[in-house]
Amino acid sequence: MSRGTDRPEVDITRDAFLGGRITLMQPRGGYRAGADSVMLAAAVPARSGEAVLELGCGTGAALLCLGARVPDLRLTGVELQPGYADLARRNAALNHIPAEVVEADLRALPPDLKRPFDHVLFNPPYYDRRHSVPVSDPGRETAFGGETVLADWIDAAARRLRRRGTATLILRIERVPEALVAMEGRLGSLALLPLASRGGRPPERAILRGVKLGRAAFRLHPPLVLHEGARHEGDREDYCAFVKDILRNGRELPI
Amino acid sequence: MSRGTDRPEVDITRDAFLGGRITLMQPRGGYRAGADSVMLAAAVPARSGEAVLELGCGTGAALLCLGARVPDLRLTGVELQPGYADLARRNAALNHIPAEVVEADLRALPPDLKRPFDHVLFNPPYYDRRHSVPVSDPGRETAFGGETVLADWIDAAARRLRRRGTATLILRIERVPEALVAMEGRLGSLALLPLASRGGRPPERAILRGVKLGRAAFRLHPPLVLHEGARHEGDREDYCAFVKDILRNGRELPI
Repeated sequence: MSRGTDRPEVDITRDAFLGGRITLMQPRGGYRAGADSVMLAAAVPARSGEAVLELGCGTGAALLCLGARVPDLRLTGVELQPGYADLARRNAALNHIPAEVVEADLRALPPDLKRPFDHVLFNPPYYDRRHSVPVSDPGRETAFGGETVLADWIDAAARRLRRRGTATLILRIERVPEALVAMEGRLGSLALLPLASRGGRPPERAILRGVKLGRAAFRLHPPLVLHEGARHEGDREDYCAFVKDILRNGRELPI
Repeated sequence: MSRGTDRPEVDITRDAFLGGRITLMQPRGGYRAGADSVMLAAAVPARSGEAVLELGCGTGAALLCLGARVPDLRLTGVELQPGYADLARRNAALNHIPAEVVEADLRALPPDLKRPFDHVLFNPPYYDRRHSVPVSDPGRETAFGGETVLADWIDAAARRLRRRGTATLILRIERVPEALVAMEGRLGSLALLPLASRGGRPPERAILRGVKLGRAAFRLHPPLVLHEGARHEGDREDYCAFVKDILRNGRELPI
């Protein structure tokens, strides 16, 4: 992928999010944000004036969607891969949403990031490569199956949160036990919203929220069904009305 | 509650389970088994000839419902409270289902129970009394909020299982994270079936299954809705057809 502005960016696409309120430059063959990033951003209960940190922000999709929904946030993104961090900075400027993007490994955050945040969000690699097969593009592979274990993401989030601050992540259902084990004693008041492609099918992904030092009981929501009907019909977009409202109009997703 | 046969058992009721296939003597004011025990028994994937252990079997509801559904099981129940263990033995005889009932603390099982079982099932106390209020009847209180922590139940189950044997429990949703933490490294191939009273409402309880040394991915099923309609109408029984088939006809509940 192209990192500078000194040659034509043939490998960069411009993609619309939130019904066109956000335009995102993304590497054509690399990791490309989609509905998951928008759903994640919709689930962060941030209010104007608060400080928000995204771990592994990629090209900034979730951070900027959150910034578009909630005005006057202090947005910070951390990204390991320089090319993605660079695109995230340019995407913030392109969309006129102030955001600081720091190139760093979340396991060793720079000292100036060691301040308390009100909210942390992250979309960690979906696959555990101890049990799955890598993809060829290195940037995509880091995003899909990066070596940082889920427990390290949760540890970094818990450390950076103020008391009662929230951590929100999106993950594959199969990794929910691993996440809950990692949150034990660190994050409480847990809430899990399963996301199912179709009604009646087992949910494939979930949004998980924890509160630093929270003590409320765990809540499991009924699955949120993303698509209408029992199967995909042709190339017609078939999101359920509530989901479309999140993806197109920037509606909040309360958990 | 009455423990012997030498005085009238005014405090004992006789209750029908599985559409009358099982009759259970239960203490009128004590812990009384209900639909949960039947659902738990329905979810145990036992086959004829296998050895099954129930931890905290009470008066034997789940163990005997399982014995009625699957012929020729070798059934063993462990119960801490002598009065309930005695009733479980009498209920086994009453229903002509061979079952060994051992009076013991599951944290210190007698040596002859230290043999491998194909399946272990348990319905541990629903409430963690660090965060809730006891009930007055001592037998009911032991069943509802017994001091044995969930991790001890899961530990006892994992120890008594053969390789690839299954542990199945029913629990309140709020205790799912605690159960998953306790299962980590002990039981795998986890599957969770949430049980919701009504459609669209958050599930209140769940059946959780683990396999000793299992390595398959965690599966979260869509919630099983127990009752039809949005609310309870009068005193009419309103179980959904599938649930009624489990409760009345002894249908298996595949997880």
